[in-house]
Order: sequence, then structure tokens, then C-alpha cells
Amino acid sequence: METIKNSCGRILPKYIEGYGEVKPFIGAFETIPDEEKEIQVKCGYGKPGENKFVGTIKEALLKSGIKNGMTISFHHHLREGDEVVNMAITAIRELGIKDLKIAPSALFETHKMILESLKDGTIKYIEGSMNGAIGRATSEGKLSGVAVLRSHGGRVRSIRQGDLKIDIAIIAAPTADIYGNANGLYGKNACGPLAYSHADSLYAKKVIIVTDNLVKYPAIPVSISQINVDFVVVVDSIGDHNKIVSGTTSIQSNPISEKIAKFSTDIIEHSGYFKDGFSIQAGAGGISLSVVKTVGELMEKKGIKAAWANGGTTAILVDLFKRGLIEKLSTCQAFDLVSVQSLKEDPMHLETNIDFYANPFNKGCLCNLLDVVILGATEVDVNYNVNVNTHSDGYLLHGIGGHQDTAACAKLTIITVPIARKTNPIIIDDVTTITTPGECIDVVVTEVGVAINPKRKDLIENLSKTDIPLFTIEQLRDKAKELAGRGYVKPKTTDRVIGVIEWRDGTVIDVVHQVDLN
Amino acid sequence: METIKNSCGRILPKYIEGYGEVKPFIGAFETIPDEEKEIQVKCGYGKPGENKFVGTIKEALLKSGIKNGMTISFHHHLREGDEVVNMAITAIRELGIKDLKIAPSALFETHKMILESLKDGTIKYIEGSMNGAIGRATSEGKLSGVAVLRSHGGRVRSIRQGDLKIDIAIIAAPTADIYGNANGLYGKNACGPLAYSHADSLYAKKVIIVTDNLVKYPAIPVSISQINVDFVVVVDSIGDHNKIVSGTTSIQSNPISEKIAKFSTDIIEHSGYFKDGFSIQAGAGGISLSVVKTVGELMEKKGIKAAWANGGTTAILVDLFKRGLIEKLSTCQAFDLVSVQSLKEDPMHLETNIDFYANPFNKGCLCNLLDVVILGATEVDVNYNVNVNTHSDGYLLHGIGGHQDTAACAKLTIITVPIARKTNPIIIDDVTTITTPGECIDVVVTEVGVAINPKRKDLIENLSKTDIPLFTIEQLRDKAKELAGRGYVKPKTTDRVIGVIEWRDGTVIDVVHQVDLN
Repeated sequence: METIKNSCGRILPKYIEGYGEVKPFIGAFETIPDEEKEIQVKCGYGKPGENKFVGTIKEALLKSGIKNGMTISFHHHLREGDEVVNMAITAIRELGIKDLKIAPSALFETHKMILESLKDGTIKYIEGSMNGAIGRATSEGKLSGVAVLRSHGGRVRSIRQGDLKIDIAIIAAPTADIYGNANGLYGKNACGPLAYSHADSLYAKKVIIVTDNLVKYPAIPVSISQINVDFVVVVDSIGDHNKIVSGTTSIQSNPISEKIAKFSTDIIEHSGYFKDGFSIQAGAGGISLSVVKTVGELMEKKGIKAAWANGGTTAILVDLFKRGLIEKLSTCQAFDLVSVQSLKEDPMHLETNIDFYANPFNKGCLCNLLDVVILGATEVDVNYNVNVNTHSDGYLLHGIGGHQDTAACAKLTIITVPIARKTNPIIIDDVTTITTPGECIDVVVTEVGVAINPKRKDLIENLSKTDIPLFTIEQLRDKAKELAGRGYVKPKTTDRVIGVIEWRDGTVIDVVHQVDLN
Repeated sequence: METIKNSCGRILPKYIEGYGEVKPFIGAFETIPDEEKEIQVKCGYGKPGENKFVGTIKEALLKSGIKNGMTISFHHHLREGDEVVNMAITAIRELGIKDLKIAPSALFETHKMILESLKDGTIKYIEGSMNGAIGRATSEGKLSGVAVLRSHGGRVRSIRQGDLKIDIAIIAAPTADIYGNANGLYGKNACGPLAYSHADSLYAKKVIIVTDNLVKYPAIPVSISQINVDFVVVVDSIGDHNKIVSGTTSIQSNPISEKIAKFSTDIIEHSGYFKDGFSIQAGAGGISLSVVKTVGELMEKKGIKAAWANGGTTAILVDLFKRGLIEKLSTCQAFDLVSVQSLKEDPMHLETNIDFYANPFNKGCLCNLLDVVILGATEVDVNYNVNVNTHSDGYLLHGIGGHQDTAACAKLTIITVPIARKTNPIIIDDVTTITTPGECIDVVVTEVGVAINPKRKDLIENLSKTDIPLFTIEQLRDKAKELAGRGYVKPKTTDRVIGVIEWRDGTVIDVVHQVDLN
């Protein structure tokens, strides 16, 4: 097998069956698009008197011309409460369609019925995040083709640029009208934005809306537009929006989190970015959320207001917004129902689609203007490379989310991690998988102390004057080993590539190998 | 010159210099797009730390790479109050750029300074509506190239399909932020939607926002998105939004209008479409507005509610909406400041872009669902063909607006006209210019009486039972001649085509010849 080394030092196959030629990662902003490259959209046609109503998902799939080998996309706004992926895959299996590529923005534990479809050949490829069971199965080689993981921004980039061509987009819609306008703000399963599906609706050949709340025309607001929708299917239930809240989206209260939150807040305060009109985003991890809470307390104490915050929005952000500490909120994903409610009722709370939020190849995404982001990790290494995809046992269990997008763009990127998890050291010599390269990371915060990327001399200078316990990353690595009681043990894997980790620009930053169960 | 006859019987050149090959109109819904046709968009690129701010329009034009022969587009939401077209053309003349095609959604009397640019070779082609002075000059041969007129929907279709390729879109924005997000809801010159520019922003190679109200990021709502904007220019004033209201957008109270409104309302009531949940749109003409008012009174009296109305929105529609007689309002253009205010404060008042509203070549525009539309005309002929572009003296003085789009799609299309204007009969044998073909017109209402298109046997049956004075269209023609005191006199024109009237699907329904001043 011919290989190539990317600029993070990862050895990659030059060609991956089912993925194609590997363009190696060459730096966070080094791959520049051909601005003249033409994005292609089908025009479609609809005239008066035509009806988009279709009785069942199966019928809609047939009318969409479903065939073996097609690519079908989904969104994950309902997270663990989504039922539409399962309904669609069931219909597809009944139709006997094989070798599909599915392109969900993310899959969850609730979609584990899909495992049967990996076995029987219904699904051959997955391009999208895989949380839990499906990632586990993929890691063990149960997906016959290869999985491709992209950041939120990278997914939209790949759709707009034609790397990911979607044949049929199936969009779970908490509210829709007869002509396909849809939103996530109303209905028994209101989930907030329909941001993940926005690009799918624009660029997929056929678009199917699946709703459990059909309202009079026109459904307002128009998150998904009728001009892009082919069929509308009404079902009893698209799932259960109460399950939007999950472990990764709720605050953690324990001594480790509190310490990390305290250090992070001190860093933000003295970073030079903490001033009126700053902007902030926090990932979904419990620690990140704790940081938002303590930063909010600091803002109130110091009389500092943020111009805007972006989410993955939670009740914590909404609370700061309602109290006037954040002037405007922008939301691509609601992590709880308080956020959904605010998006519905607050005019200065903006639903943003993912192109707007994070696509590196448009005329400017929101991430480009972000001051501070607080993110999590499964591992961090001495080159500040961050892993969020695999665990130290080699299993691919998480998606990239907005990690790459925000880390690359924000002026201050803070990674918050416990220094060890059980017997796993978290700051190590070399991460199992590189999700985000060290060049994008400014500060690593653990409960034991903080390491600042040496390239950020300004931050080192500002933070040296404080009582934040600063260490080199190598010192943190040593402490991690000490606390875990053992060093990092590289997981045993086979030669087979089961997952490709793309950088947001479409180059490959790493690959994931099948775990070796022998 | 080789000619070809379209299905309305118009003899057209097969080829028009500066326009190209003429595709003849073959019927309102006969030209079907290739659904697989690919629409092309440039991807663009913007990264952190880059700034979109530019000091002047001239500098923004230079940075956009302005060159001789390019196509520059504008919107007309500010109508007679727009200053941005004039500022841009002034800058372009100072740069010495020649042979431009300008593609405004419409030009008004306030843009008459442009006449100098026709003379000095700055502007060679106009693709867009021309109201008043510029239409007059074009009719007299003062535009060296040809003008192309399209309906609102046809304009977006032509942009999406690549018939009209825009190099630089210049967008007057009542509110914008540093990254190019813009809307028309806030600011000293709030004009309502920015619907006309939406397609321009998506498909133009370069996009320049010109604003007089820069707000903190992000400007909410996002009518024009940062992801499509290259440059932001701040000026003292983009114009005067008080001049949005004009002669064609205010109600007329006179015996003729009142009679026409009464007949029209009776027709709607007995048409079969007047029931709970119906939808309605009215054109900008004074008579149309009078009809809306009387229909509103009828709705109140009969306890009938409309599900939605679309505008060109005026205070009259907003009043019905606020009183609950119309459940939802959708607006592509605000005809007064009451409408702007409502769009800002009423959640069930939707800003719709023109693709959504009227493009015939997408998966379904709003017009397709319209029940009743009330429209005006400059002339109507015995084949029910309607002219809204030229006057009987042959001068091209008005745009098409949404006339074709709504007439083609609505279940009931009512044309309201006085039977004569001064000594001009309005119902005639053959209209000077065909804008909308007779096949799209259901009823013609004059103050003298009403003619129903014979193909609408259902309407004839329903309305025969009422006391509405029904005539054949030929009878109305005769009455028109009698009241005008003379028959229709065909204007003297030369052989030169100065204007192409496209049907919304891109075929040519008619051409306009230069008036013969000899």
C-alpha cells in the first residue's frame, strides 16, 4: 500500500477503497479552495395543482427513485429522541435496497437497529458522526465500507463542493406545511433549529419532509424552504424531543470540573479577550458548560457583556442572554427545551444554518469572528493535538461536531480535560487519533494545571502574571501518567482503515483502524 | 431578418443582437425545465482575521474587479427613495467603465441621472424593469443595446439558470453588520424585505452591501447572509424610505374604482373560492388595493378568514391581518412603512424571497398555491391578453412585477381596469404589447361590466346567477371605443427592437419596438 505523510506526521494510505484519493492535511488554513469552483444544484420544477403529499416514507422513497448504492441523508437535531432514521431504514430494508451510503449529521445509540442493516448489506458506507453502538460496531469492522467523519463545517463544505453528493435527504420536521416549508420551533417534538439539514435541502436531488405536526400554509419560520422540497410525509411521531438532553449536554458538578472551570475562567479573564463586546462558544461537554456558568458569573461581577454567543445552546447560555449578559444568541443546535423556547420567543436569538456557522469555504462563517471557545477532548498530546473521536482503547465513539471549526477560527481556543480518566492518562505523547491539530489549540486546562501553546507568547505573558498554575505540556503529561498510575497504551488495531477523519477543508488529518480483538 | 411566431401570434425576430436567440413563448406552462440542469454558484473563501469593510463604493467596485462589459445588479425595495443606484453609477462613471449591463429589479424616476450614462456609453444594456424616464428614453432609442424585461419570478429563474449572470450585486441595506449580514427591518431607511436581492446575493460573483446603519454583529434577521457577501460599505444615507409609497401603491377613491371594486368583490364572493382558508394577493395598482379593502369588508361581514395573503404589502393588508381576517402575511415588498413595522413585530408575518414567491423553475413557489389575485393592466384585448408594460402610445413605462407569476398560477385571476383612460380605449382588439397571455386571465372587470374568459365555464355558471353585469369581451371592447370616443390607434414604431418581454419561463412573449418620432 502506498502511503503519504500529512503535516501532523500521520502516515496515511494514498488511496482508500470506497473513499478515494487521500488529500493529506497540510495545515489548518493552507488548503485554499478554488473560489471559482462551481457549486451545482438541481433546479427542480413544480407547478400549480401539484401535490407534495405522500402517504408513507416508503412511497416517498419510491417516488424519489431510490436505488441500490444511493446516498441518503438525515439530521440529528432530535439526538437520542430521533425516530425518523429508524423508520426510514426500516422502509428501505423492506424495499430490499442495498449498498447505501447514509449521510446523517450524526447517529446515536437510539439508532442501533441500524446494526442489522450493516449486516444484511443495506448500508455499506456511513459519512457522518457515530456516537455509541454504531461507532463501536464500525470499529470492530462491521461496516463493509469505510466511514467518513467530518466537522459540522466540513460536512457542509463537502456537500456544497460535491464531495458528498446526496441523492435523497430525509428531514425530520417538528412542524411543516403541505408544500414542504418546515421548522423546528413548533409542535410536540420541537427541537429548535433545522440547521443540519439546510445544506441537504439545497443540494440533495430529492428532499422528503417527515413531520408529525402539519400546520396551515405557510409554516413560519421557513427553516427549510418549499422551493427545495419534493415530498411531504405525515407520521404519528418523529420521536421524542425530551431526549435531546443527554449526558454530554448537561452540566457536571464535581471537584474536578469546578477546578477546571475556575482555571478556564481565570484564563479568559486575563487573556486579553475578556472585554465588552466579546464573543464566546462552548462545546457540549459537561466541563465546557461549567466554564460558561463561571464565565457568566465573572461577567456579571465585572460588568462585562458579550456581544454574542453561539451554540450548541443550553439553558445556561439562555439564562445569560435573558439577563442581558449576552446581547445576541445564535443557535445551530438546541441542547435542551429551554433553548428551543427561547429561539421561538426571542427576536434577538438567531437560528443559524451550518454553512453560516462553520463552512470554511464560503465568503465567511461565524466561527471566523469567534473570540473564545471552550472545548473538550478524549485525549491531548504534547504537540497539542486533540482527539475527540476515539477512546484510548481505539474505539471510534464520537463525532467531530464543531470542534475543528471553532478551534481553528477562535482567537482563544481552550481545551478542558481531566488529566486522567480512571487509569487512562489524558495528556499523552501522541493521541490515538488526531481530530484537531495542535496549531489550533491555545490552552489546555486540567484540574492539576494549565499548559499554554508555546506559540502563544502573548498568552504566556498575560497569564504568567496570574496565580494560574502553569506547566509545560510535557509536565502535564508526566502528571497524567502519575495520576493514572500508568502510561498510555496504544490500542491494538489491524491494518484495515474503518474511518477517515477529514479536516474541515476536505484533507485527511487521520484515519482510524479496526480494533484488533485477537 | 428571420422571424418566428409565438403561440400568442406575435412575430418575433429569431435572433436579437445583445439578447441572443429567441425562444418563442409556447404556452404558460409548456416550457418545462430540465430538472437535472445544474445551477452554478461560486464557493468563495473567507478566513479569520479578514475584513470586509471598504471605505467607498468605488473602492468596493475596484476590489470586486469591475471591468468594461460587466453586469451589475441592484434592488428596488426603496423605490422612489433609492439613492444607491445613483451613487454606484456615479462611481462607475468616475472609474471610466463602459458597456455595462445593469440588472436592477426595477428603476424609477429617481434614477433619471442614469440617462447620462446611456449617452456616454457607461450603460449599454438594462435587464430589469424601467418605470418612467428611463423607459421613456429607452423607447426613444437612447439605450444602445437592448432592454430585457422579466417578471419577478422570471428574474430569479434567469439568475438561477445562468441566463442572467451577475458579476457584481450592489445591495442597499437599511441594516447590516461588519460581516455582511443585512436586513431591511431596522434603521432610518427600513424598507421591509430584501427579497429582490436574495438571488443576486447567492449567484453574483461579488456582492457589495451598502448600508447607512451598521449594527453590532450579528445583524438579525439575516435576509442577506454573510456567507455570500464580499464587501461592506457604510454611507451617510442609502436614500429616503418615505418615498416607498408612490402613486401606484396608494388606494384610489373615485366612482370608477369603487364600481370596479364592488364588481370584483362580488365575483370573488360567488367564484367558488371565497371560503375559510382561501388565499389572496393584490397588485400595487390603486384599483387592486380598493378591491382588497372591499373584500376585507365582505370577509368581516360573512365571517370568512383567509389563511394567508401575499404582498406587495400595504397598510390595508396589514389591517386585515391585525384584525385576524388574514391569518398569515407573506411579504416580498413593502409598499408602505406600516408594512415594514408589521414585518418587524409580527411573528406570523413572513419575509419571503422572490425564488420562494414566484420562480417557476424550483420545486414549488408560493404563487402555485394562490387562490385569488387581483391585477391591473394598461390594456386588455379580446383574446384576454394583458399589457402592463407599454402605454397605448408605444412607450415602455412599466415593469412586469409579479403580474405574469400570479396570473399564471392563481386559481382566479381578475384584471381590474377602467374601460377607457382619457381618449384611450383600454379593452381593444390587440394589445400594444403582450405581457401576460389570455390563457392566464379569468375575469376582466371594468366599471361598465365584466367579461369572463369563455374557457372558465364554471365561473360563467357561478356568476350568471348573480346580478353582476356580464358581457362578452367584444362587447366591452365596443363600449370602450364608445366611451373613449375613438378606437385604438396602433402607435408608430420603427423596426428596431428596444425591449424584449420574456415570459416567466424564459421564452419571449413579445418585443417592444422603438417609437417612431417622425
